[in-house]
Amino acid sequence: MPRPANPETRSRLLEKGGDLVSSRGFNATGVQEITAAAGVPKGSFYNYFDSKEAFAVAVLTEYWDAVVAEFGAILNEGRTPPLSRIARYFAGLAEFHERRRYAVGCLIGNMALEVTPTSEDVRIKLAAIYREWSAALASCLREAQEKGELSAAKDPGQLAIALIDTFEGAVMRAKVERSRAPFDGFERLVLPSLLT
Amino acid sequence: MPRPANPETRSRLLEKGGDLVSSRGFNATGVQEITAAAGVPKGSFYNYFDSKEAFAVAVLTEYWDAVVAEFGAILNEGRTPPLSRIARYFAGLAEFHERRRYAVGCLIGNMALEVTPTSEDVRIKLAAIYREWSAALASCLREAQEKGELSAAKDPGQLAIALIDTFEGAVMRAKVERSRAPFDGFERLVLPSLLT
Repeated sequence: MPRPANPETRSRLLEKGGDLVSSRGFNATGVQEITAAAGVPKGSFYNYFDSKEAFAVAVLTEYWDAVVAEFGAILNEGRTPPLSRIARYFAGLAEFHERRRYAVGCLIGNMALEVTPTSEDVRIKLAAIYREWSAALASCLREAQEKGELSAAKDPGQLAIALIDTFEGAVMRAKVERSRAPFDGFERLVLPSLLT
Repeated sequence: MPRPANPETRSRLLEKGGDLVSSRGFNATGVQEITAAAGVPKGSFYNYFDSKEAFAVAVLTEYWDAVVAEFGAILNEGRTPPLSRIARYFAGLAEFHERRRYAVGCLIGNMALEVTPTSEDVRIKLAAIYREWSAALASCLREAQEKGELSAAKDPGQLAIALIDTFEGAVMRAKVERSRAPFDGFERLVLPSLLT
């Protein structure tokens, strides 16, 4: 009879396993390494996750929820002008990558490139994250238009998704160069060019 | 005694193995699968490559050389205005991804996110590719400035690398959404915003 699931064990599997997946990649990380890192028997993994793929979706969900919890509020700070909020939001994300010395990258981008070819569930989850992420940015961009900070001719939805694409490209190069330079380029060149 | 190396076998290993790595990821592809796809005995892999990591560097080299061979000349078409060359160049790359139905993505980006954490050789090769790629674009952007097509106030080197970052971000999302939409955004929104 399977043991009853323990929410703390599930959290530990997601945290320790998520660290491994973030730093080494999903396919390079085995279930046994995940359970060893979390200090639980290998077999118990399947009490919590139907498959390694289901685990990937859960890790992505945790990652995205953490990003929203840490940075989401910046986009809704009513007293700050909307375009300044956007700049602060991405500066916060850049600092997040800096703290991890650029080596890990963004789990969303990592999974997008590594896991989508082999997992439709991960691909669908990532598409949902892209939608949520761009909706949050688009809402702030719409406010910027209402306040006359941003040209009314621009489509906030398209602009939001362009900001995400350009930022993810910077994260990618930061991982290769292990440097802040791509984020400097994003802040000084890409953001001002797009947000006019 | 090891057999003398056969250049055709090496090419076949790189071609068939490169396809596997491109479609499934580097870590998900074993040496045995690479040799099976190329129709050679597993042991012969090491007659050609010192390690799987050395193979990754060789695959990247082939990929980049193929991109330069197929698209590089567009940037030097003297009769076409420089900014039109840039637009055609990225349109060509977008079509390349379209032909592969967006599922594969760019091997440079894939390797950047998946393999740099565990391979310093791959990281160094990727940094060299970024340098070559941005130098080729910067040279065309400099011409655009000389011809008055682009503001002389912009730094061609920084602009070149921003184009690469933003394009790679679009390739990433195209892989998730399996659609051309990210390239449309790049062509209609990002390129015109950056190239003014």
